[in-house]
Amino acid sequence: MTLFDAGQPASTPQAEGRRVKLVVAYDGTDFHGFAAQPGVRTVEAVLGDALASVLQVPVECLNLTCAGRTDAGVHARGQVVGLDAPPDVDLDRLSRAVNKMAGPEMVVRRAEPASADFDARRSARWRTYQYTILNRPEPDPFLARFAWWVPESLDLAILRLAADPFVGEHDFGAFCRRGTGTTVRRVLESRWHASGDVLRYEIRARAFCWQMVRSIVGVLIEAGTGRRRPGDILGVLRSRDRSVAGQLAPARGLCLWDVGYDT
Amino acid sequence: MTLFDAGQPASTPQAEGRRVKLVVAYDGTDFHGFAAQPGVRTVEAVLGDALASVLQVPVECLNLTCAGRTDAGVHARGQVVGLDAPPDVDLDRLSRAVNKMAGPEMVVRRAEPASADFDARRSARWRTYQYTILNRPEPDPFLARFAWWVPESLDLAILRLAADPFVGEHDFGAFCRRGTGTTVRRVLESRWHASGDVLRYEIRARAFCWQMVRSIVGVLIEAGTGRRRPGDILGVLRSRDRSVAGQLAPARGLCLWDVGYDT
Repeated sequence: MTLFDAGQPASTPQAEGRRVKLVVAYDGTDFHGFAAQPGVRTVEAVLGDALASVLQVPVECLNLTCAGRTDAGVHARGQVVGLDAPPDVDLDRLSRAVNKMAGPEMVVRRAEPASADFDARRSARWRTYQYTILNRPEPDPFLARFAWWVPESLDLAILRLAADPFVGEHDFGAFCRRGTGTTVRRVLESRWHASGDVLRYEIRARAFCWQMVRSIVGVLIEAGTGRRRPGDILGVLRSRDRSVAGQLAPARGLCLWDVGYDT
Repeated sequence: MTLFDAGQPASTPQAEGRRVKLVVAYDGTDFHGFAAQPGVRTVEAVLGDALASVLQVPVECLNLTCAGRTDAGVHARGQVVGLDAPPDVDLDRLSRAVNKMAGPEMVVRRAEPASADFDARRSARWRTYQYTILNRPEPDPFLARFAWWVPESLDLAILRLAADPFVGEHDFGAFCRRGTGTTVRRVLESRWHASGDVLRYEIRARAFCWQMVRSIVGVLIEAGTGRRRPGDILGVLRSRDRSVAGQLAPARGLCLWDVGYDT
């Protein structure tokens, strides 16, 4: 099972293969982010190597794309990856084989056929991130990899009030790390869910700038602990000045939760 | 803040200190079990070193006892540890200082005064263990450290039927690793809880033999997948023959959940 037969002209590989959509979950703790980089262990490199090995094609021929290039330490429950695969690929077997090689740290949750022009990044209509906070006096060994432990008491009503101004179209310059290109984004949802001492912030947007969610959570937590007034948040947003926003929330609490497509 | 003043006679240290009860949680993945052993990293060694450092007493003078000597890789949510501390110890500060040194991998959840004769092991009335199973075709990166992934479909009704015979007083010889002394134990509860594809087996007994819970779970899963008839379990129990019981469930799914005391 190889993608390109030796006798086929290399210039028309797409006609011989099919586009596949994967939904991938990973514990980002020990990955240096998604995007392949020389000399470090990334999600793209580990997933690409496993796919290339199972499909017996060079990794360069997979034409991998992803919905969200998560940073080092950031997790994913619903990362979406597009790739080229041979037309006769058995998607269930592909998932099982990749999971055997890369799991349980990284797991293909679903593999399904996609249209020939499917691009996990460009075709996405929205992305949802969840940020998990543990709010109690002592940490929790079982949440240590996946939550930010905030021992100071947080006021949930204030957190909710502070989350409101982000909804809608804004220039998120104050919440983005050195933006090349526009920092205008449309946020569709920005809300808190509470379950005991575990608080989850969910934010949905068509797209995000770099470190935008962690920057927003950093400011929200400053409001929730009383170090910043919730009424100031609109001012921070309008300033478009990154130095006005506060601390960056740690990567470990962040998870790319879900990505929406038209099809 | 030291336990023994230089001027005090060394022969009456107890009279100068107080007994303290700690409730401790830990991610057992990177510990070689609870009990101190030369040359390996154990819960007792890390906790003992942190306590000795904060209290400024030699670790030998703490007289540490624990409710359950968990094996390598086994977790605890409610391990109970007894120790001697100076009479003027501030228990909240002690917890915070230990958590700063050993957390979030190991966390003191509570610290409270105990009676002078409190022994975490001998004073315990019962222990509860929980064993977590993930039952779905693909693994889950977020449960990988704390659950046993069983991809074969499990029949919950069968699992429940198979769990019943363990309740009551039995000789658990077939479910214990080389028992020195009696292997008769009284099981108070043996039940399954299900939440989606996560199944939790809870077992409560006054005391357990070595590897008893993992051995029971191994047999239960054989029944749940259809490899063993639930009706055979009573026969395994009565055989008192370890070779009749099946595979040992992996350590990672097991957690010392709770310990009960009269006081």
